[in-house]
Amino acid sequence: MRDIIINQPLDMHLHLRDNDMLKLVAPFSAKSFSGGLIMPNLSTPITNKQMLMSYKNRVLEAIDGNNFEPYMTLFYQNYDTKFLKDIQNDITAIKLYPAGITTNSKQGVSNFDIKELEPTLSVMSELDIPLCVHGETDGFVMDRESQFMDIYEQLATNFPKLNIIMEHITTKDATKIVQKYDNLYATITAHHLLITLDDVAGGFLDPHLFCKPIAKRYEDKEALVKLATSGNKKVMFGSDSAPHPTHKKECCGCAAGVFTAPIALQLLCELFIKDEQNINLQEQNLQKFLSSNAVDIYGLTPPNKTITLREKNYKVAVDYKNTTHTITPMYGGKTIKWSII
Amino acid sequence: MRDIIINQPLDMHLHLRDNDMLKLVAPFSAKSFSGGLIMPNLSTPITNKQMLMSYKNRVLEAIDGNNFEPYMTLFYQNYDTKFLKDIQNDITAIKLYPAGITTNSKQGVSNFDIKELEPTLSVMSELDIPLCVHGETDGFVMDRESQFMDIYEQLATNFPKLNIIMEHITTKDATKIVQKYDNLYATITAHHLLITLDDVAGGFLDPHLFCKPIAKRYEDKEALVKLATSGNKKVMFGSDSAPHPTHKKECCGCAAGVFTAPIALQLLCELFIKDEQNINLQEQNLQKFLSSNAVDIYGLTPPNKTITLREKNYKVAVDYKNTTHTITPMYGGKTIKWSII
Repeated sequence: MRDIIINQPLDMHLHLRDNDMLKLVAPFSAKSFSGGLIMPNLSTPITNKQMLMSYKNRVLEAIDGNNFEPYMTLFYQNYDTKFLKDIQNDITAIKLYPAGITTNSKQGVSNFDIKELEPTLSVMSELDIPLCVHGETDGFVMDRESQFMDIYEQLATNFPKLNIIMEHITTKDATKIVQKYDNLYATITAHHLLITLDDVAGGFLDPHLFCKPIAKRYEDKEALVKLATSGNKKVMFGSDSAPHPTHKKECCGCAAGVFTAPIALQLLCELFIKDEQNINLQEQNLQKFLSSNAVDIYGLTPPNKTITLREKNYKVAVDYKNTTHTITPMYGGKTIKWSII
Repeated sequence: MRDIIINQPLDMHLHLRDNDMLKLVAPFSAKSFSGGLIMPNLSTPITNKQMLMSYKNRVLEAIDGNNFEPYMTLFYQNYDTKFLKDIQNDITAIKLYPAGITTNSKQGVSNFDIKELEPTLSVMSELDIPLCVHGETDGFVMDRESQFMDIYEQLATNFPKLNIIMEHITTKDATKIVQKYDNLYATITAHHLLITLDDVAGGFLDPHLFCKPIAKRYEDKEALVKLATSGNKKVMFGSDSAPHPTHKKECCGCAAGVFTAPIALQLLCELFIKDEQNINLQEQNLQKFLSSNAVDIYGLTPPNKTITLREKNYKVAVDYKNTTHTITPMYGGKTIKWSII
């Protein structure tokens, strides 16, 4: 039985929701990770300091004493210099959503004209506030991310000093673009390293693997795995763990989102640690993907925490519940090969 | 308000299932159609005369006195001359499934080597028994049909006198191949003329639109609509109406199949009848797609029946049920623009 120790693991794309759902899911991330970048798309998106600080306090309450830093984000809108200077020290990034593209994103951006975005983005660039982007158009579901690459290129070239993070990339196209520009970075989820559209809709339809961006082709998954496991400094882990109540997944009109918080580290271990001969390099690259790359990209000083994983079967819970909610994780009821000890 | 009269409408690809499900669904097809080609993939597939005749009797009971001809099919396996001669007059076609490709297809064909298929197919060719094919490989879900085109071409060229029906085609590729060989024909469903993968998984996930083959891209749908509405003699309507209990659709691991029997004619009317100027041609092409092409391809003499459709809103039932089953149709609860009167 082999043990792998991860220092300060970070989840740089995390949905914790609010209220009773927050209370249910936050401890899973807070136990396994040293910190996480908390997404701002609550049912009322976080667009000012008061909402941000209030949400941060609710998150801190919900993590239940665990040593975990919630890196807060603001929902992208047009913001002026005064506003951004005032909130700068309380946020780690600003998250941009195209309008209506995913859960709670109605108030997002509907016009990607650079002139429209320039006033806010140039101030963010000056103040060194990173921009996180959900990069999808409203086109055909399998093409949405690839169609967004032009916008990424325009953003990267027009704002060369702005650090731009391509969130939850899912395509071979995105793995190329992220390496083409110095100021582009990317997060990759655990599930996009493991599944394709075949897992969602190839045999039976699996609502618990339905997410946005939707899982793509085998060649896309392979390109993502190659990039993530290579230790490349441009990519980092962001789970996009996104809980929905089970009854809103197993229904007509199921919401997009995969809940991976309790199993993400174990799955990544299984993916990265492949053979005896290169064990040290694989472990180093896992450490980079799970922590050091994010530390460098965002300039973070995460709380000290080490997580030990063991090559030992782990049966994933069928569901997790509190008095208000029941949620079904990815691979619920299945056995995976690594455990947190 | 405009009326359209269809003579002897035929559904040349129909799943009626068995027992209580058969009793629930058969009357919908039997009311709207003059006849239907009944698929043989029951939980125990129909592979001999006794099973066939017994199932036909159950179907005739279930149609509840409606003037409707069930055109029976046999599940493709290796059959010898004696067997085929004996059953020839009781069947309209033999349906070939690749093994494991869809509901109840485990006993299908796993080796598409022409030498393996030759003994049975050459007898079918001699006896003029049409071959219906579910044309999908076990490849990536969006490519399965296109990857099967080589097999269709091999079948068409090796058995030039065998009439081969490409069932429920969903791709632009298939619309080309069907026109390339004299002995290839195709059925097209109502839902594949109306939806793309965006409707299944582009916004929320819709289990009631999940089917095999899965709905494809916009350019595929457009090619199908163009072919179907043109009056082309190579294509005919086959609903592939395939009921599953609602609880097996709205769950984790939803089965493939769209239940369209009660609304297929209305939907096709809405699709074909588009503008005043070409009304006669549109009506003729609808008649061809819904009946005359199938009559010519299969050499059928369907029972006399005319169905009158009126351009008048029709609210689709949310579900249909008997004491055993509840099933949810396509567009359940929505309003469509044509009604059967």
